[in-house]
Amino acid sequence: MVLSIVGLGLGDVEDVTLKGFNAVKEADVVFLEIYTSLVINANKQTLESFYGKEILEADRICIEEQNDKILEEAKTKKVAILVGGDPFSATTHSELYLKAIEQGIDVKVIHNASIMNAVASCGLQLYRFGETVSIPFFEVNWRPRSFYDKIIKNRSANLHTLCLLDIKVRERSVENLMANRLIFEPPRFMTVNVAIDQILEIDNELNLLGETEIKAIGISRLGTKEGKIISGTLQSLRNSDFGVPLHSLIICAPELHDLELSFYNHYASG
Amino acid sequence: MVLSIVGLGLGDVEDVTLKGFNAVKEADVVFLEIYTSLVINANKQTLESFYGKEILEADRICIEEQNDKILEEAKTKKVAILVGGDPFSATTHSELYLKAIEQGIDVKVIHNASIMNAVASCGLQLYRFGETVSIPFFEVNWRPRSFYDKIIKNRSANLHTLCLLDIKVRERSVENLMANRLIFEPPRFMTVNVAIDQILEIDNELNLLGETEIKAIGISRLGTKEGKIISGTLQSLRNSDFGVPLHSLIICAPELHDLELSFYNHYASG
Repeated sequence: MVLSIVGLGLGDVEDVTLKGFNAVKEADVVFLEIYTSLVINANKQTLESFYGKEILEADRICIEEQNDKILEEAKTKKVAILVGGDPFSATTHSELYLKAIEQGIDVKVIHNASIMNAVASCGLQLYRFGETVSIPFFEVNWRPRSFYDKIIKNRSANLHTLCLLDIKVRERSVENLMANRLIFEPPRFMTVNVAIDQILEIDNELNLLGETEIKAIGISRLGTKEGKIISGTLQSLRNSDFGVPLHSLIICAPELHDLELSFYNHYASG
Repeated sequence: MVLSIVGLGLGDVEDVTLKGFNAVKEADVVFLEIYTSLVINANKQTLESFYGKEILEADRICIEEQNDKILEEAKTKKVAILVGGDPFSATTHSELYLKAIEQGIDVKVIHNASIMNAVASCGLQLYRFGETVSIPFFEVNWRPRSFYDKIIKNRSANLHTLCLLDIKVRERSVENLMANRLIFEPPRFMTVNVAIDQILEIDNELNLLGETEIKAIGISRLGTKEGKIISGTLQSLRNSDFGVPLHSLIICAPELHDLELSFYNHYASG
């Protein structure tokens, strides 16, 4: 009948739009996507009490591998999938969207803020952001550096870089995976501090950041009252306390416009 | 007392968040910013009937030059400023925000979707967008080409370019400006077709786009039911009908990922 992909925004349950709220209230079945993104102050329980109806958690397997079940339901029922941020911020939902419309399902996309536009809260101009990077947790034998290359490329074009920091939710250890046991590791969220450690680890080897003073801005819990924005050099932010997740990091362009610099100085005290 | 800068989102009055809706309902004074952005299916009248209260239009002069009045009111009253898209998509609101917090006013920013993130509806990955460009209406003696240079730069880095198209609201003719007459020209909104004409006019001279087949995607009225997404070469989209405003144009990176290409082909029929 209809599949609504509803962006929930960034911070609180009230960050949903009225259009999104109504779509959820009218839905026969509601899923909450829980692995590409999250709403900071909302989870299954708070959303269930907010909407007064049952909400089913949908993990990677449910959304990517078993999505035929969801699409099958959407042919006869009103199905809503709730997604933190905006529906199209993750490729996953683009795939689901395309599959649904190819099957002739009526799909409604309800947009919302995501870190990709709300990052401008830090005072850097959204126009001046280059390619966005994702920084994954380093493992003992897996220390990719493509995010570092992109930061260097953006800086050489005098552009800012938004670094999205790794979220690990419902991950299984290799041992549990091999044994096919549905036992999940505790969730892990990368902090600004760990992200900077990883950037500087690569830079110690390659030394492409060049200057010693790289301006950066750390952001935590954007869209909530307890959110923090702290600016400073990469080295100084390494020791700043950004509190509980979610965190994001921005590596500034080498040159800041006057207004950007005013914001940078404003947030320097934390 | 408090200044709330409320993002209204893209398309309809119901695109406001519940947080934003409550801030407007509680406000003593409500302004609608009318010159950097707009909500497609909302104006002063529809918003007034939606919220059941008076709304004052705020043009460039009110927001940029005479904003002390707004800030003065916010010291004793609850003031809300409504902005199409997200509050920080335009530099203007960043300036106002900084000025307000420097004066000790409690400022609340209520985020929403903007074209800067909702553009991902076209199926291109948001991560792969380079610097955003604004394309201004060419005048007889003013034909800037910086947007063209940035498109070339993004393409050489294999990145997409979002082109924001000119909006002229409450503009005065030079004659009326000189005579200090508050007579405004009819609003003008650049179409995808005019934007492409201007890009190709520069390219005829400089010939830096290189290939003859440049993939592009035109978008109109994003976030509304009547919205259109049409993909095709720059040359073919020149003659496509995108209907009434607002329009945006994306110049694709030279290489598309598989999923991006599936969307591109899906939207090729218009």
